[in-house]
Amino acid sequence: MRRLYHMPLSPFCRKVRLVLAEKKIEVELVEERPWEKRMDYLRLNPSGQIPMLRLDGLTLADSSAICEYLDEKYPAPPLLPRNPADRAEARRLAAWFDDKFHHEVTKNLLYERVNKRIAKSGYPDSAAIKAGAKNIKYHIDYIGWLMDQRRWLAGDEMSIADFAAAAQLSALDYINDVDWARSPAMKDWYSKIKSRPAFRTLLADLVPGFPPPAHYADLDF
Amino acid sequence: MRRLYHMPLSPFCRKVRLVLAEKKIEVELVEERPWEKRMDYLRLNPSGQIPMLRLDGLTLADSSAICEYLDEKYPAPPLLPRNPADRAEARRLAAWFDDKFHHEVTKNLLYERVNKRIAKSGYPDSAAIKAGAKNIKYHIDYIGWLMDQRRWLAGDEMSIADFAAAAQLSALDYINDVDWARSPAMKDWYSKIKSRPAFRTLLADLVPGFPPPAHYADLDF
Repeated sequence: MRRLYHMPLSPFCRKVRLVLAEKKIEVELVEERPWEKRMDYLRLNPSGQIPMLRLDGLTLADSSAICEYLDEKYPAPPLLPRNPADRAEARRLAAWFDDKFHHEVTKNLLYERVNKRIAKSGYPDSAAIKAGAKNIKYHIDYIGWLMDQRRWLAGDEMSIADFAAAAQLSALDYINDVDWARSPAMKDWYSKIKSRPAFRTLLADLVPGFPPPAHYADLDF
Repeated sequence: MRRLYHMPLSPFCRKVRLVLAEKKIEVELVEERPWEKRMDYLRLNPSGQIPMLRLDGLTLADSSAICEYLDEKYPAPPLLPRNPADRAEARRLAAWFDDKFHHEVTKNLLYERVNKRIAKSGYPDSAAIKAGAKNIKYHIDYIGWLMDQRRWLAGDEMSIADFAAAAQLSALDYINDVDWARSPAMKDWYSKIKSRPAFRTLLADLVPGFPPPAHYADLDF
């Protein structure tokens, strides 16, 4: 049984889906709504968070731990460079998007606009949305600045940093919250990663009640 | 120049200090208050977060990326088990404490009681403190449950999971917010890790205006 418990717009699930697809590991996708706190789910994954992956007879949780496992067990193509200094840079940037970008941007935009409505847990907080819309500019500029100097976010090779960033941005792009015109360097990078076969699964997502903008699935956006 | 930019009670800095000490890497400690947003610091570490480590001619940021780097470059003693499944379990639990415990407990207790006063950014929020005091019970019970079955948090060997957990708990113990009587199994585990030579640096910390309780530095607490 190869199964990923996920939600379509969760950036952490999207990161793992991208990595699985890059490594050509097919899994069954099962939707899990963490706020329902299903006992059967909590017994397997006491943190209650998504994603959770069942693979190789194991129950794996925490998206970074899952990606490191996949890279150790299924090394092609690699998610991390060879030498420790370059690996540290890739992991620093993956954490930047998983942690800093997620708290400053994704939570304020995606969780306010979408998750609250799906979970029926209140109305969007307009101050949070305003903060998210302001914060994303600074992150776009940082990506643009990195891409002025590098082929991929963490250096010359594609790495987990690119998947972590693309996972957050693709979820926000689904609700039309990314201003691609702000940084041509970022847009070039995103179109490179968006046209990879691994990205197709994300572009096919449809969340009832939230139709994506026309450009979302368009490779020539 | 081997230098760690830190704050004494930051759990992420404490995790890195424990790992450095276990691996017998001596560094100069430099206090950095992230809310001051020093330009010289931001130029080196644009996330503005602590810790940041200067070592081997590199500038390393993000506590997990730093620990993985240290383990790859200075492998003795190891922070992670050998096989991928056990490594995933150690990383899952390290993330549990870095992420879940930190958000549910440490932010609500330590940051409300101490950081707000040091940063002069307002008064402690009593609802947050109440939530933190309630949440920590569940985490203590989880640690107790793990320690009923294992020698160390992630299995038979000490790992990054133990340092991540001890870093959060030791910072909370400094402000007397850990009820050690709640779980004898957790207390046994903590006294084992607390008596390691690497822990001494943490036990010597003194934050002006916040004297620790008598038992804080006592190995027989």
